[in-house]
Amino acid sequence: MRLHSYFRSSASYRVRIALRLKGLEYEYCPVHLVKKEHLVAQFRALNPDALVPVLQLDDDHTLTQSLAICEYLDETIPEPPLLPADAWGRSRVRSLALSIACEIHPLNNLRVLRYLTDEVGASEEVKNRWYRHWVESGLLAFEAQLGQNLPAGRFCYGDAPTLADICLVPQIFNALRFQCDLKPLPRIMEIYETCMALEAFQLAAPGAQPDAA
Amino acid sequence: MRLHSYFRSSASYRVRIALRLKGLEYEYCPVHLVKKEHLVAQFRALNPDALVPVLQLDDDHTLTQSLAICEYLDETIPEPPLLPADAWGRSRVRSLALSIACEIHPLNNLRVLRYLTDEVGASEEVKNRWYRHWVESGLLAFEAQLGQNLPAGRFCYGDAPTLADICLVPQIFNALRFQCDLKPLPRIMEIYETCMALEAFQLAAPGAQPDAA
Repeated sequence: MRLHSYFRSSASYRVRIALRLKGLEYEYCPVHLVKKEHLVAQFRALNPDALVPVLQLDDDHTLTQSLAICEYLDETIPEPPLLPADAWGRSRVRSLALSIACEIHPLNNLRVLRYLTDEVGASEEVKNRWYRHWVESGLLAFEAQLGQNLPAGRFCYGDAPTLADICLVPQIFNALRFQCDLKPLPRIMEIYETCMALEAFQLAAPGAQPDAA
Repeated sequence: MRLHSYFRSSASYRVRIALRLKGLEYEYCPVHLVKKEHLVAQFRALNPDALVPVLQLDDDHTLTQSLAICEYLDETIPEPPLLPADAWGRSRVRSLALSIACEIHPLNNLRVLRYLTDEVGASEEVKNRWYRHWVESGLLAFEAQLGQNLPAGRFCYGDAPTLADICLVPQIFNALRFQCDLKPLPRIMEIYETCMALEAFQLAAPGAQPDAA
């Protein structure tokens, strides 16, 4: 298996956590987003979306979109599970994951920030405010979701990491990098610490990747 | 079952299609986004994300995030399936769905467009260019994905509608509304027409909702 990844990409980070939680070995293929290596023809042939991560299976079939890759890993290698066993629980965990993947992260992608400065003409200050606005308001909503009808536990949902934690940790990594205000998020930060104590999360972290700057 | 929905919300539209494909009856609860009814305390108690759709089950449990709701419906009411039977196919369909739900739609939400004009100071023209940029570039990538290793058929994946079509149709509805250039998307537009010939898609369309303006 080959993972096309960029060390700082949140979406790549999610898949790296899932691969580690499942105990899978893989070849790491760096794609340097700042050097625009994702825009070259060779990479576009692999993924017309021109996005990382891409997981290339041993039969050369490719998978794209981090959450779709995680679901594939969970369906083909069921242990340890990344989703609860019951339909309602599964939907709740997916909803937490999607509330990061659809409501926070897409607004703060490198290409979106670039468009904001280069095409809309936003200053560095306006861009950074934009970044923090979506992260802080999105994480506040996430913190509120955690307080709503979910089983108690050390992770987002119960006592084992799920797809929700897989999405949360890379988002917090970014939030720390951009100095977002995390004080109103005690539950989230507790979960973050719990996750970061696990080897799977440590091995998947940006700083531990071969292409780390 | 009660669906909290806004007629023009793409995410609500997705769930309406899924409910209709599954042949489910539901009570329609309108939430007027332009009048900011999603920001009142009563709605936030239902969903701290302050987003539609919300599906309230008969036992009062709630489900949020359109794709998580669709997955729940597919797990609890398996026929007709919204995903292929095999893990690779399921991942491919989820990837198509996510490439709309994560790469296009989040950038063109009402609240994002509002922030762009009110906080970043973008003009109407810059805002509309922003809108079309993400829709047009995102749909071009989607068209390319459709040409890549997918089984032929009248829909995005084979000969029956899946989660991919459920995401595609509302996005095209919006693209038409904002006069995006759809000429470079022959395969997508063929699929759109095929979907719109089905009663489930017609009944779910914005114009057919009780709160249609």
